[in-house]
Amino acid sequence: MSAEEAAALIEPGSIIGMSGFTGAGYPKAFPQALASRIAAEHEAGHPFRVSIWTGASTAPELDGALAKVDGMEMRLPFQSDPICREKINTGKMHFADMHLSHVAQHAWFGFLGHLNVAVIEVCAIHEDGSFVPTMAVGNNKTWLDLADKVILEVNNRLPLQLDGMHDIYYGTAIPPQRVPIPLYGPHDRIGVPHLRCDPSKVIAIVETDAPDRNTGFAAPDENSERIAAHIIDFLAHEVKVGRLPKELLPLQSGVGNVANAVLAGLLKGPFDGMTGYTEVLQDGMLDLVRAGKMKSASASAISLSSEALDDFLGNIDYYRERIVLRPQEISNHPEVVRRLGVIGMNSMIEADIYGNINSTHVLGSSMMNGIGGSGDFARNSYLNFFVTPSVAKGGKISCIVPMCSHVDHTEHDTQVIVTEQGLADLRGLSPRQRAQIVIDRCAHPDYRPMLQDYFDRARQSGGQHTPHILGEALAWHDRCLKTGTMRL
Amino acid sequence: MSAEEAAALIEPGSIIGMSGFTGAGYPKAFPQALASRIAAEHEAGHPFRVSIWTGASTAPELDGALAKVDGMEMRLPFQSDPICREKINTGKMHFADMHLSHVAQHAWFGFLGHLNVAVIEVCAIHEDGSFVPTMAVGNNKTWLDLADKVILEVNNRLPLQLDGMHDIYYGTAIPPQRVPIPLYGPHDRIGVPHLRCDPSKVIAIVETDAPDRNTGFAAPDENSERIAAHIIDFLAHEVKVGRLPKELLPLQSGVGNVANAVLAGLLKGPFDGMTGYTEVLQDGMLDLVRAGKMKSASASAISLSSEALDDFLGNIDYYRERIVLRPQEISNHPEVVRRLGVIGMNSMIEADIYGNINSTHVLGSSMMNGIGGSGDFARNSYLNFFVTPSVAKGGKISCIVPMCSHVDHTEHDTQVIVTEQGLADLRGLSPRQRAQIVIDRCAHPDYRPMLQDYFDRARQSGGQHTPHILGEALAWHDRCLKTGTMRL
Repeated sequence: MSAEEAAALIEPGSIIGMSGFTGAGYPKAFPQALASRIAAEHEAGHPFRVSIWTGASTAPELDGALAKVDGMEMRLPFQSDPICREKINTGKMHFADMHLSHVAQHAWFGFLGHLNVAVIEVCAIHEDGSFVPTMAVGNNKTWLDLADKVILEVNNRLPLQLDGMHDIYYGTAIPPQRVPIPLYGPHDRIGVPHLRCDPSKVIAIVETDAPDRNTGFAAPDENSERIAAHIIDFLAHEVKVGRLPKELLPLQSGVGNVANAVLAGLLKGPFDGMTGYTEVLQDGMLDLVRAGKMKSASASAISLSSEALDDFLGNIDYYRERIVLRPQEISNHPEVVRRLGVIGMNSMIEADIYGNINSTHVLGSSMMNGIGGSGDFARNSYLNFFVTPSVAKGGKISCIVPMCSHVDHTEHDTQVIVTEQGLADLRGLSPRQRAQIVIDRCAHPDYRPMLQDYFDRARQSGGQHTPHILGEALAWHDRCLKTGTMRL
Repeated sequence: MSAEEAAALIEPGSIIGMSGFTGAGYPKAFPQALASRIAAEHEAGHPFRVSIWTGASTAPELDGALAKVDGMEMRLPFQSDPICREKINTGKMHFADMHLSHVAQHAWFGFLGHLNVAVIEVCAIHEDGSFVPTMAVGNNKTWLDLADKVILEVNNRLPLQLDGMHDIYYGTAIPPQRVPIPLYGPHDRIGVPHLRCDPSKVIAIVETDAPDRNTGFAAPDENSERIAAHIIDFLAHEVKVGRLPKELLPLQSGVGNVANAVLAGLLKGPFDGMTGYTEVLQDGMLDLVRAGKMKSASASAISLSSEALDDFLGNIDYYRERIVLRPQEISNHPEVVRRLGVIGMNSMIEADIYGNINSTHVLGSSMMNGIGGSGDFARNSYLNFFVTPSVAKGGKISCIVPMCSHVDHTEHDTQVIVTEQGLADLRGLSPRQRAQIVIDRCAHPDYRPMLQDYFDRARQSGGQHTPHILGEALAWHDRCLKTGTMRL
């Protein structure tokens, strides 16, 4: 049926679980049709909002369209859409910012409410009723299992050679029935290639022919290249002293330009036979796989620029042998991440001198995108890096601050902080030891004296485990809100 | 040999891994002898400090004695000793506050430095060279494996019937050699009952005859009983709606009087056939096991009052069938905690209205004890509770604040906050939704209007995902530092 006919089947107040992870594999037609219907209902004076669960971020056709018409009551677990963000930060919709590995299990436990409808993009429907997933697996298995009703979007744009790239693990359970996840290596396949659901739940099938978001990446700038060089030097040192094998351990890389630059750096770096175990595979990791530097990569989604997508589609048989796409409850699972000993690399908004990390909030209150999988990986990694340029907004904001205005990763979870200025290895250090290293190595020279002054004065009185001056700890952020800069 | 002779074998600057977890199983004679030696060296003008790693907290004979003589350069991963705390908070020693599940692996990875000596209390040494552990396992296996030299304290006070209560898992490895931990139920035994080490590493054996710390518990007060009642009501509700099995899921309980009161409440509560999967077994859980309400309990240590210890020793054959003591890397392992679906209950210092939790710092800077296992359990639990009376210091301090002065558990990890005032179920909510519930349900009536005023004014301007007034967010703590109270 048409997307409009499918959208007509939705009740106001529904909870809808949609496919989509990092701008890949989201339904393209249905959400826009639903947004149109909601706009019409609103114009007619009828309240109409729904709650939307996904894997992670989607695209303008989904988050943008539904946010624009004020169609979402609650959104979880992650978003990155400008309109959606504006609605969250003006208080017009609710957003629950969750660890990506928690989402499926909390839905199964019944902690999030009852899922009424699943809307899932698929590549094809087999005669046996099973589905070939698309460029993202996300929470699709869980939505298909839990929802009362299912709407499928079959995207004809996608090649059938995707069939066989996915590994859908159907062995999860609710405690006390859980057993070990039998995944021993990053490339292991432990499930089946297809999704499935009770056919009687399918209330609509909509055909589409549309691309994913396919956001491009900026060419690595000087700061990104410096950050990449610091990380590669450090990894080489760790190999040299015997704390990492020469092929490293499975790499996880967050999204964005800096992460992409680090992977680009590894393309020229000294490591061979690498593996990836990450939540989203982007251009940089694809390049590593193509070059043979990375022998396999596991993710929950593939999110590429248009150019990289052409390469991927043109060499899909090569990539299908080397890439596995999994549900996010497996790609991000603490059990698996810890067992494999993943090396986590995630960007951040700011770090404080004691090693706390803010990944989500601008100046304490405004949501950027969400925590995503950074907590799943950082806490359970063998080694983790948090990276950012040392300043933002042309130097008006220091990304190293006295105290984070919001904490997403605590001092207990942070190992290495990297800016273009340098790298601070915080392993095994006390807060006071960390502070001096973060100031010396990571802060921008324009802000280093201010940070040193804060730290020096904080050591004059009060508790000396984590010296702070509480009346000043957030003054940098407050000043920025009032004057537009953290500078004095 | 004597403890003094053993202490004479230690080089200045050594890193020493000692047994001890929650005031149980720590060496009693050696640390005091080492402290005496350090004091004498200091008097003679010779610098002499060591770094001390343990399982968790110890007792005056270890942390107190060594802190008193300024004998510790670095202490990790947890402490609760008044003298040690004072030295940390006056900047006279360093403390690295770590997740208890991270310690063994970070030592194995080489992230913390090289372990020179292990000093381990044992109950007995078998003819085959293996050791019967005492009341705590902690990191003993790891210290024995990693240290160059080993000093054993054989404590003759302990009954040999402890033999068989422990389960030492020797299947851990460094990535990429890790495999699933084959633990399916809280009472499973997956290892061997004894510790071992290369006999050639043993440089001293010291005999002792001394009790553990055996701290008593306060009888549950009215606030603790109210907190317990809120939790039990909530658990009963979750069973009723089908979100928990009628025997619940394995219980984890933090240390202290409130936690003990919750367990005391469960003794009279409606649940039978319970199990425990926790890091330390204290009086309340022992009572549940004795009464048959809890069919088995797994922990890394047993830390009892003197009265409970008498019961334990008098019925040790009964308890040995029902209690398993494990290394803390297993008792607290994210893989196992998540698989079993543990119900975590941990005390805290303060919560903010958005659900962030401070477990470690008084007024932002001063260390109380440490994060311990609260992060291991909270993040990976099926369901978690953070509990505190709503006020401290006779009402001068509100334990519900606008913004935590230190964050140990982020909003992403917190599910249920409980005070004597009531219970706030935060599952699936946005920050704004959480704030109103925390204010309404958990805050003390004396502070509720102040919190509501803050929240109302924060919603007047600025980012509305997590509304804050940054210039005021920590003003309550700052006022308390200056005036002794958070009251206006």
